[in-house]
This record gives sequence, C-alpha cells and structure tokens, in this order.
Amino acid sequence: MQTQSENRCFGGTQGVYTHASEACGCDMTFGLFLPAEAADGPVPVLWYLSGLTCTHENAMVKAGAQGWAAEQGIALIFPDTSPRGEDAADDEAYDLGKGAGFYVNATEAPWAPHFRMWDYVAEELPALVGENFALDMERQAITGHSMGGHGALTLAMGLPGRFRSVSAFAPISNPTASDWGRKQLNAYLGKDESTWARHDASLQMAEVGFDGPILCDTGTDDQFIDLLRPEALAEAVAKRRQEATLRLQKGYDHSYFFVSTFMEDHVTFHAEALYA
Amino acid sequence: MQTQSENRCFGGTQGVYTHASEACGCDMTFGLFLPAEAADGPVPVLWYLSGLTCTHENAMVKAGAQGWAAEQGIALIFPDTSPRGEDAADDEAYDLGKGAGFYVNATEAPWAPHFRMWDYVAEELPALVGENFALDMERQAITGHSMGGHGALTLAMGLPGRFRSVSAFAPISNPTASDWGRKQLNAYLGKDESTWARHDASLQMAEVGFDGPILCDTGTDDQFIDLLRPEALAEAVAKRRQEATLRLQKGYDHSYFFVSTFMEDHVTFHAEALYA
Repeated sequence: MQTQSENRCFGGTQGVYTHASEACGCDMTFGLFLPAEAADGPVPVLWYLSGLTCTHENAMVKAGAQGWAAEQGIALIFPDTSPRGEDAADDEAYDLGKGAGFYVNATEAPWAPHFRMWDYVAEELPALVGENFALDMERQAITGHSMGGHGALTLAMGLPGRFRSVSAFAPISNPTASDWGRKQLNAYLGKDESTWARHDASLQMAEVGFDGPILCDTGTDDQFIDLLRPEALAEAVAKRRQEATLRLQKGYDHSYFFVSTFMEDHVTFHAEALYA
Repeated sequence: MQTQSENRCFGGTQGVYTHASEACGCDMTFGLFLPAEAADGPVPVLWYLSGLTCTHENAMVKAGAQGWAAEQGIALIFPDTSPRGEDAADDEAYDLGKGAGFYVNATEAPWAPHFRMWDYVAEELPALVGENFALDMERQAITGHSMGGHGALTLAMGLPGRFRSVSAFAPISNPTASDWGRKQLNAYLGKDESTWARHDASLQMAEVGFDGPILCDTGTDDQFIDLLRPEALAEAVAKRRQEATLRLQKGYDHSYFFVSTFMEDHVTFHAEALYA
C-alpha cells in the first residue's frame, strides 16, 4: 500500500492510498479520514460510496463530511467507483465502464475480469483497511450518493450484520426499472434479470429489508429524480414496516451542494447507531 | 448579468453569475451564496478572495463556508482571481497572469489593459452585487487564502471604513520580500518599488493598520510558509499594538483541508463584527 498524500484535517488526517487490488486486477486508490481519536485506538467506520463519474476524490473534497466525522470520532472511507488503468474495459458513455462500476461483480465480457466492485468494497478493501489502520470493524455504517446510494443500500441489505445503519443521498433506488440501471445491469450481469434483483434496493427491501435504521434524502428539484425512482423504495419501506426516515428536501438538486447541506444529519444519524 | 447556475444549499442559494467587467475589460464570473434570510431583506456580506491558480469555483466547492454562513445569515462572495479570455495577457507560469492577478491594478505592459483586480474587487463588483442582490453593503467583512489572504489584508487596510473585520488563511504576508510577490509586483507595477508598498500587508500594517479585529491562521507544516513570511506580519502587528489574533496551527499545510478546518472560526469571527 502506497501513501499518495496525507493532510491534516479537522484535527485528524485525510489520507489517500493506493494498493494492488486482487478483486479488480489493477491498482486502486481510496481516501481515508482518521479522526484524532484514532491515535488512541480503533474508531468506528463510515463508508461513503460515490456516484457516476466520481473517483475517491470528489466526496473527499466536496461533501464536507470530515468536520462532522471529527466531531463524532468516526473514520470515513472513500473508495473509487470502478477499476482503473489500461487493462480494464471502458465505454465512451459516462454511465458505463470506468467511473460507473455500480457496485456489482460483472459476469459478462468485456467487464468480468476487472469490474468486481462488490467484492472490492464488501471484502477486499475492508480487510485491507482493517489491517492497516486503527479502525473498529465491529462498528461500521455506510452511506453514498446517487449510484453510491444504490451501493450503500444494496450492500447493507446484502451483508446482514455488517452495517449498523445505512443512509443515502439521492440514491438510485430501483435500477431494474430505470435507465440508470437496466443498461448497466444488462452489460455487467447479462440478460437474465433474476441476477439483477440483489442489486436493486427496492427489490431487496421487499425481499429481506435491513436490520437497523435507514435515512434517505432526495431533493424535490433533483434533475435526475425520474431515474432515481425514490417512490419505489418508499413503497417497499412502508410495506415492510422498515425502520426508516425518507425525506424529500424542497428545492434541492443532485449536486454536492445538496449532499453537503445534509451531511451533518447523516453523520449524526450514523454516530447514534455506531455508539448505541 | 447572466446566471450560470443556482443550487439550493444550506437553505439558501449558491449562485454563479457572469457579467461584462469594465475594470478588467472582459467577462468575469463570480460565485455568490445567499442565506435564506436574504429573502426577507439585505444581509451582511463576507468576501472570500482565492489564491493562485483558483477561479471563483475552488472555495465555493471546497472551503465548506456555506454552512457556517447560513447559520449566521451572512452572504458569501467568491470573485475570480484574474481577468480571463483571449484578449487578456497571460504567462506560462502558474504564478503570473491568469489565475494570479494579485489584487492590484497593473500599470505595465502587457498587463495594464486587463489586470485591474484591485478596482474590480474594491469598486466594480461591490457596486454590481449591491444593486442586484439583497446585500447590506454597510456591513462587509473580508477573508481569503494565500494570494487571496494578501488581497483581503491589503484591501481591508487600503479601504478604511469599508470592512468591519478581516481574516486570512495562510496569507502571503510580505510580498515585497518574497518570491511570491517580487516577481508579480515587478511585472504588474514596474521597477519602482515605492508603488509596491500598498500591496504588502506587513508594510501596510506598519504604515496604517486596520480599524477592527484581524484573525490569521497559518499551518506549521505549510509547504509554502517561507514564501508567506507570517513572521513579518506578526512583527508589524505586535509593533502597532493592532487588535489581532495570529495563530500557527500545528501540522496543517496549505491545502483546502486546512482552510475548511478553520472556516467555522473565521465565519464566527466575522459574524461577531458584522452583528456588533
């Protein structure tokens, strides 16, 4: 593991690290914020999964999460959104290939050799950071934005007992019924739609739900709201009687100005679960 | 004036606007955050001047200022750092020409026709925003980072009575004695160093001081600290018995991770002066 940079930030350290990833078959880079408390012992962890076109860096510099994480003594992990490098396949579209891994393990050509973001975020990266940093892997929570909100919700429901709480900003909530989803699931997983269901938060909510609290925010003026389909998740949550707070925030759009506005709420929400 | 974008942000609006600038002889773009209170009447104003290589956008997305400004009911203005466009002269170096206006009115070729950032920030832009937005121009304060900290300090001292408070993050404090300064002042203002003094915060502090409180933060691990020369400003402040808080922050560098860490302190500091 190589250190790319470490900057003092809110009394802790914002680091960027690169490592050879077995899951993705390429070098992968991630951001990690450690609060001051990590100097004294393991701290709880909040994962932040990013959206289409993002790298590890976008949320790290624009989401304003470190201040609130520092206040709560919580670490933040910012993974990349896809494999990188010349060996990994790509597509000209912004919403397929690099920057658009969709947090699945691809089974189809040309994606299968590298696009294994589920394994990367669910298995390889937690093992790596758990070994190398003062993180309490018994206390994890997860959040994300847009495609990353989809990732957070599907990972939380797909890995029972792993995360104490899950939240999302403008998540892609029903990808099997959206142009943000059908295209990618078809490309990565193939035409058999039965393999798609575990990567659809609304279907997973109907099927298994989540053993803990959920918080979701979406802007009423989100320019992509028809692709996000918050109504599908809302219906599934209500039908299941799932513990959840789903909020539609008046006037907000899909940008990081929206994410940063509600970041304090999300970090506080996770802190309550992590320290319960 | 053209609206480039408006995003809902912390209950207010983060806008980006472009206008034809007479001072700079080109189109100029600036960011403006208006808190919710601006819907009911004029609000106080905090200017944020950016550093070398920046546009209006850097601080707007990375400094984390809007949340604190919203809490205090204060507007934020993020000007660009130089003229733009094909007509304006430029230099291959990152620290001269575009992105490096240094907040002076150039008198030398090829800079004089466009590089009039002092007039732009001191006169033209305040008049424009005062006419077009709900801003209380009787209550202004100013801050900035690096070259923008230099701008904030020299504007505050050069325009007595304009600003109620001034602060800076890692300001270029003594440009007449630094490679971040001598090169630019020579290029923009010419060889007669007597014209440089009003653009040197340490010399201005010795000469005139500031009628209000000052707050400056600089990181002890700032990679450019030898160019910033905080010691010159510290000496001048102490000699003048100027009301000021000068802090050296252990372990912090020159990045926006440093700026965002101390932004709450700076906005709170200005709010106290603006609402006094």
